[in-house]
Amino acid sequence: MVFARGGHDVVLWDQDPAQVEKAKGHIARTLPEMQSAGLLEDAESTFRRISGAADLAQALAGVDFIQENIVERAEPKKALFTEVERLAPPNAIISSSTSAIMPSIIFGELATRRRCLVSHPLNPPHLAPIVELCGADFTQPDVISRARDFMAGCGMSPIIVKREIEGFILNRLQLAVLNEAFRLIADDYVSAEDLDKTIKDGLALRWSFMGPIETIDLNAPDGVADYLERYGPTIRRVGHSQSAAEPWPEDMGARLDAERRAAVPREKLGDATQWRDRRMMALAAHKRAQERKTPH
Amino acid sequence: MVFARGGHDVVLWDQDPAQVEKAKGHIARTLPEMQSAGLLEDAESTFRRISGAADLAQALAGVDFIQENIVERAEPKKALFTEVERLAPPNAIISSSTSAIMPSIIFGELATRRRCLVSHPLNPPHLAPIVELCGADFTQPDVISRARDFMAGCGMSPIIVKREIEGFILNRLQLAVLNEAFRLIADDYVSAEDLDKTIKDGLALRWSFMGPIETIDLNAPDGVADYLERYGPTIRRVGHSQSAAEPWPEDMGARLDAERRAAVPREKLGDATQWRDRRMMALAAHKRAQERKTPH
Repeated sequence: MVFARGGHDVVLWDQDPAQVEKAKGHIARTLPEMQSAGLLEDAESTFRRISGAADLAQALAGVDFIQENIVERAEPKKALFTEVERLAPPNAIISSSTSAIMPSIIFGELATRRRCLVSHPLNPPHLAPIVELCGADFTQPDVISRARDFMAGCGMSPIIVKREIEGFILNRLQLAVLNEAFRLIADDYVSAEDLDKTIKDGLALRWSFMGPIETIDLNAPDGVADYLERYGPTIRRVGHSQSAAEPWPEDMGARLDAERRAAVPREKLGDATQWRDRRMMALAAHKRAQERKTPH
Repeated sequence: MVFARGGHDVVLWDQDPAQVEKAKGHIARTLPEMQSAGLLEDAESTFRRISGAADLAQALAGVDFIQENIVERAEPKKALFTEVERLAPPNAIISSSTSAIMPSIIFGELATRRRCLVSHPLNPPHLAPIVELCGADFTQPDVISRARDFMAGCGMSPIIVKREIEGFILNRLQLAVLNEAFRLIADDYVSAEDLDKTIKDGLALRWSFMGPIETIDLNAPDGVADYLERYGPTIRRVGHSQSAAEPWPEDMGARLDAERRAAVPREKLGDATQWRDRRMMALAAHKRAQERKTPH
């Protein structure tokens, strides 16, 4: 959907052809919703740019950009990329959606690894613009910039991870929050429900349109340097206490599950996921309208 | 604005009477904007509930709830609360907006400390519903519940911090993000601009209407326990690497300032703050409309 929205012809392939049909059904339902929300000009012509391929060779014939989204394990990805490298045009960019495997691991043994990088999106990519681009030492700088331009042209918000690091940027920030959240809940400072409110009714209101650095830049009269002058020692002190804290307990999942299943029973998780995606779409439309109104 | 919106008569007092007039001017401008945005039914009658007092005794006569917002240092607060305790009705709740000083410190020496707690809001409180309620050991449980009901009745989203901890909940989560952000930028994994994008174009889209625990509850087929089963070891491993990382450098403020001032010159910080508040108001209106549409 993202690439077709950007005006590109897109070919889908899966080792199970039923998955391609399933994906096309999902896309056929979703694109008109995006058009209704003002997020897409023409759902029908966008859909017509998407086709399925009978085999990998057909899928790769003449392509410029390849995005892999198979199971999140290194070995199957490496095996697939060996095939892809053999069948794809020599200048096509080869990209993986992995959120957790380093590009040096999955691409390191390829003959044409210089054209390979990770392009890590957030789910669902057609509603969350972020995509983290991360190459390995062997990735050509030109490949990173071509990938960035390609993604930006598809309406994404690409960022450059300059060197490999576990979790890239987005998940390292998410995991910093989760580790502290788990400790605060486990040590009974706060319930999970109340902790969630500090984010959704507090911090993330600003963060949904400004990053954390932009946010603190407006939280002291003279900007971010002034902010760090005032609060730097507190930030370090709290950071030390977080680093020195006891790890969260092994039964954390069970504890959180008890609280969450009281709020959303297991059989309602599917409904909750649909609700989330409706909210994501409404928020994307809201942000687009705001960004048109107040360029900044 | 928050308390008057909740239907309460509000009396403002400041040691400098000009500040009260300044506040009333700000309120007179802001309430109609809130009404236009659909966030308030009647700006005029709300404004009429707010008055100024000539002295502290007049301000405190017959009140039920007292919210202090003076300079963020313990000594002036303690001195003020000694006065407040003497002049206020014996059952009135005494509350401080402090973001950083523990309730045991500012209230510990008061004779009626059992009715005292911290109610820490986020700026601007009339657009960010969160308020963290934190008592000390000596605070009566009944005072916490009365404060919670009072804040909820004013349209706030109160949470209970069950025990004192530096930074309470909201700032501990913010500082976990900032410490990791500073390290990633200092170690040249990412620019500040790109790091901000991972939040505003990524993580905080979901977080603006779901907390981090609700978010991961929908990120594995069987909910949060399943999520921790799958990703718990990664979360711990990344957490360890964050705890073990070198501290961010002393010149962090200067580095960030260079990047931020290129994006927003110092003389435009005021405009940027107004833009932020407009976006906060538009987002509050968006969230209210969405919450009416999709109760969850």
